[in-house]
Amino acid sequence: MLGAGAVGCYFGGMLARAGQDVTLIGRSERVQAINQLGLEMDCKSFQELVYVKATDDLSVLGDADLVLLSVKSLDTEKTIQAIASILPGHAVILSLQNGVANVDIASKWISNPVYAAVVYVATGMLGHRTRGELYIGALQPAQGRDQENLVAICTLFEGADVPCFIAQQIKKDMWLKFLVNCSYNAISGIGQITYGEMVRIPEILQQIDHITEEFLAIATAEGVLISAAEAVEANALIASTMVTQRSSTAQDLARGKKTEIDFLNGYIVELGKKHGIPVPYNESIYALVKMLEQS
Amino acid sequence: MLGAGAVGCYFGGMLARAGQDVTLIGRSERVQAINQLGLEMDCKSFQELVYVKATDDLSVLGDADLVLLSVKSLDTEKTIQAIASILPGHAVILSLQNGVANVDIASKWISNPVYAAVVYVATGMLGHRTRGELYIGALQPAQGRDQENLVAICTLFEGADVPCFIAQQIKKDMWLKFLVNCSYNAISGIGQITYGEMVRIPEILQQIDHITEEFLAIATAEGVLISAAEAVEANALIASTMVTQRSSTAQDLARGKKTEIDFLNGYIVELGKKHGIPVPYNESIYALVKMLEQS
Repeated sequence: MLGAGAVGCYFGGMLARAGQDVTLIGRSERVQAINQLGLEMDCKSFQELVYVKATDDLSVLGDADLVLLSVKSLDTEKTIQAIASILPGHAVILSLQNGVANVDIASKWISNPVYAAVVYVATGMLGHRTRGELYIGALQPAQGRDQENLVAICTLFEGADVPCFIAQQIKKDMWLKFLVNCSYNAISGIGQITYGEMVRIPEILQQIDHITEEFLAIATAEGVLISAAEAVEANALIASTMVTQRSSTAQDLARGKKTEIDFLNGYIVELGKKHGIPVPYNESIYALVKMLEQS
Repeated sequence: MLGAGAVGCYFGGMLARAGQDVTLIGRSERVQAINQLGLEMDCKSFQELVYVKATDDLSVLGDADLVLLSVKSLDTEKTIQAIASILPGHAVILSLQNGVANVDIASKWISNPVYAAVVYVATGMLGHRTRGELYIGALQPAQGRDQENLVAICTLFEGADVPCFIAQQIKKDMWLKFLVNCSYNAISGIGQITYGEMVRIPEILQQIDHITEEFLAIATAEGVLISAAEAVEANALIASTMVTQRSSTAQDLARGKKTEIDFLNGYIVELGKKHGIPVPYNESIYALVKMLEQS
C-alpha cells in the first residue's frame, strides 16, 4: 500500500487483518506510529487493533505483486518515477485515488498494468464509517491478462471483507465520483462546512448546478457521456448520505496542507482551456482554494 | 449622523470637533459608550478625545438640517422609512455609504433632496488613517437649490478639516468605488486576507480581471461608461495604497455579522439578471459570502 493516509490505512488494515502480506509505505513519523501502536480500526462491524508492517523504504516494492496506490494525486507522478526502477515486471498497480488523471500519469512512467478503483464510501482516520466498496476496472480496452488480474484483485478484497466489483464502465464511474468531488470539495473547504449544511443554502445549490453544467460539457468533450439526470442523482446522493461530512479539501485546508484542488476543479479548468470551453464557476472556486492554501 | 460605525464616528467626530451641532444616532450600546467615553480620535495629524452627542432616538431628526447617512446599505430602506415622517421638509440627506443603490432607495420614501458622497479613504474604528476625502454630488441632473446645497455641505466639511469637493461626475465616481468594492471585498472576506496578499496570488488577479470585465458590461448597460484602463487603474490603486487592509466584508464575517454583499457583488448579479448579462464570477463569490454569513 503506497500511501498511509486514511484510505491506505483502511484498505491496508482490512487486508492485513485477513492475513494478507501487506506493507504500508508512508512518511517516517506515520510509519513509526503504525509500527509501534498498530492501526486502531473502529468500524461499524468490528473494533480491532490491527498490526501491519509499515516502512518509508520504497525498495520493499521489489517484492510486490500488487501495488495499491493511495498517495495524494499531487504525489502520483514523483512517486511512480521513484518506484519505476524498483517495481518487478509482473507487479500490478491499482489506483485508489481521487481524480481522473492518476492512471494516465502512472502509465506514462511504467509499463506495468495500471487499473483504476472507485472507492464509494469515504473513510476517516478515526473510523465510524461503513466499510468502503470498491469498483475496479481497466481504463484502456481490457487486454489479455486484465480480466484475470481484476478477478484476482476482487477475490483478494472480498476475502478481506471488502466488497469489490469489476465495473462495466469504470471511466464513467470515476467521472461520476470526480463530479461529486468537483461539486462539493472546494466549497466545503472554502466554508469549512458539511455537505448537509451546504445544500441548505440556495445560493450554493445554484453554484453546484453551474459547476455541474460546466463539468458535463468537459466530460462530453473528453468522451465521457453522463446525463444531466445521472449527475443530479450523484450529487444528491452525497448530500443525503454524507450530511455531517466535510471534504478532504476542507480537512487539508484546516490543517494548513496543500489540497488536491489542481486535480479536482483545477483539472476541469485545465481541460476547459484544452477544449476551449469556458468554466468560470469551476475557475472561481479553484482560485479561491489556491488563495486559502496560501493564507 | 445616522449611523455610528467607523464612517459615522469619523466624520461626525470631525464636525463636532469643529464646533458643529452634531448628533450621532446609533444602537444603544454604542450610543452609551460614546456618551460616557467620547470618541477617541487617533488620526495622522492629531490625537484627541472628542465629545459628541449620541442617541438611539430618531425623533431628534425633527430638528435636522443635514442628515448624513452612514448606516449599512442593508439598513437604508428601513431607516429611511422610519424617519420619513420625522424629517423636516428643508432637511438635506447626504449618503456616505458604499454601493450605488442607496440614493435611489432613499428617494423612494422621501421627497427631500438626497445627495451621494464617495469617501476616498477607508476609516477604521481605531484610526491611524489619513483623513477621508469626500466627493459629493447630485445623481439626478442638478436642480435649482442643488448647487447651493452642495456648496453649503462642502463649506461645512472644509471648515471641519475634511477635504470635500463637488464631483463633476459623481455617478461615475460611485461606480468606480463600487468596482473596487466588487473586486476586493468578497475575496478578502472569503480568504480573510489583506489586499496586498490578494494581489500576490496569480489566480486571484485573474479573478479580479474577470469580475471587472463582468462589472464593466453591467456598468455600460446602466449607462455608466468606465474604460478598461480606468478600471485597471482603480483596482491597482487600492492594491498599492491599502496593502495591509482587509475589507469591511472580511471584518463583518470575522465578527459573525451580516455583510453588505447583497449591495456589492449581489447587486451586480441582480443587474445581470435585469439586463440578461451573465456574471458567473460575481455570482460565485456572492454565493460563497452568503454561505460564510451562515456558517
